[in-house]
Amino acid sequence: MTNLILIGLGLHDENGISLQGLEEAKKATYVFAEFYTSYMPAIKISNLEKLLGKQIKILSRKEVEEYTQENILVHAKKYPCVFLTPGDPNIATTHIDLRLRAENEGIRTSIIHSASISSAIAGATGLQNYKFGRTVTIPFKSTSISEIPYENIFENKSRGLHTLALLDINSESRLFMSIPEGLTIIIEIEERLRKRCTTRNTLAIGVARLGSPDASVKAGTIENLLRFNWGDPPHCIVFPGKLHFMEIEALKILCKADPELFEI
Amino acid sequence: MTNLILIGLGLHDENGISLQGLEEAKKATYVFAEFYTSYMPAIKISNLEKLLGKQIKILSRKEVEEYTQENILVHAKKYPCVFLTPGDPNIATTHIDLRLRAENEGIRTSIIHSASISSAIAGATGLQNYKFGRTVTIPFKSTSISEIPYENIFENKSRGLHTLALLDINSESRLFMSIPEGLTIIIEIEERLRKRCTTRNTLAIGVARLGSPDASVKAGTIENLLRFNWGDPPHCIVFPGKLHFMEIEALKILCKADPELFEI
Repeated sequence: MTNLILIGLGLHDENGISLQGLEEAKKATYVFAEFYTSYMPAIKISNLEKLLGKQIKILSRKEVEEYTQENILVHAKKYPCVFLTPGDPNIATTHIDLRLRAENEGIRTSIIHSASISSAIAGATGLQNYKFGRTVTIPFKSTSISEIPYENIFENKSRGLHTLALLDINSESRLFMSIPEGLTIIIEIEERLRKRCTTRNTLAIGVARLGSPDASVKAGTIENLLRFNWGDPPHCIVFPGKLHFMEIEALKILCKADPELFEI
Repeated sequence: MTNLILIGLGLHDENGISLQGLEEAKKATYVFAEFYTSYMPAIKISNLEKLLGKQIKILSRKEVEEYTQENILVHAKKYPCVFLTPGDPNIATTHIDLRLRAENEGIRTSIIHSASISSAIAGATGLQNYKFGRTVTIPFKSTSISEIPYENIFENKSRGLHTLALLDINSESRLFMSIPEGLTIIIEIEERLRKRCTTRNTLAIGVARLGSPDASVKAGTIENLLRFNWGDPPHCIVFPGKLHFMEIEALKILCKADPELFEI
């Protein structure tokens, strides 16, 4: 018997949960949720509670990572519990960590999967999924800027691969990095390392609110994307590698790229 | 107004669709579906039709790729249509191609995302999503064996990255490559190229029926996995790169790896 099921909520609002996820959550004695690993722009907890017919206890990162015993594990030892997460569970390390601790206490765990940006990005842009290299996260500037995301974009590109760049969030202070902020950081590193990987003339794709009805997907030079009005979070960026003919078509048609960008 | 919505069905059965996907499919005049890009082990079309309250027209690859005009586009020009796909739409090239042709005919398209193996694999194995390199597909043996999947696994590994290897399917003849078949092909290439990338003693993870209640996830040497009884399709394989401490824990606990494998 599984006593702790991690259930994905998908990308946008409470209707991203699967029918299976909804059924299992209805059956649970306790329903926990976290919203610190990702931002779901339109989710309304009260609607989700109505769908489930029960109360949801929303946990902070601290409650999941440090006070799990008091919050989830103590209940999951006795009763069927579910833990709702944005996107697809276990993409975030904090979920894997929770699962491992639960299993170590003899609590059986399982996952009900849902849409995640890491696969949805291929669909949204029309770029081929198997041509994506490793995903990077661009962190907020602190005292120094990490060159790792840039190096990974460079490494992916040198193999002809696309890079999905996730942008940092700080859910407690409700800070969400925007596409222009992320691009500015990457250009700053470009100007330092000068590998000609992400100059102002390089093609990139900005994606805002993927999975929402008002999602915005736009390909252009980094210079173009810096000036575009992206609206509300969450945002992410794709740095394309070598493009196949059909991918160029997709960038023109689905990502509104200026056809002149692809003329030789 | 969107006239053709591609809706993902997720991984296992008709309950993998999201609430949003279900609502949109109910509103459509025509509902099309394909099941040739992936195998959903437990889907029952009659159940799905009951959920939607309407008939579903299932299309072959030929009908989607060659006779789209007669099948989807002619209707989507006049009426709201949906196209149901296994997993998350647009991971398969055939979906992108359909979308581009629809848009070129003035039909607005959109996607309702769902769970896909490409993100679910991280959750199922406990390996870190951002450490996956490009995904490969191991094709059925024809007159010659392609070395490309092996080369890509090797390239990912040399960067410390994990590789998801999807296994070929031929839905018309209902042929699904099994984990032992896939491993045998990879070992055959190893024995030819001798890069010591995937020998019989190399650690790998087999995953059968991901997203199903009877999913089977098992880490071990390739030799172990060749002898394991995997049961029904679909199957896939993960070739791990450099492992973090928490990933090793996940392989032991979630993937039932023999702890001795990690002793030095």
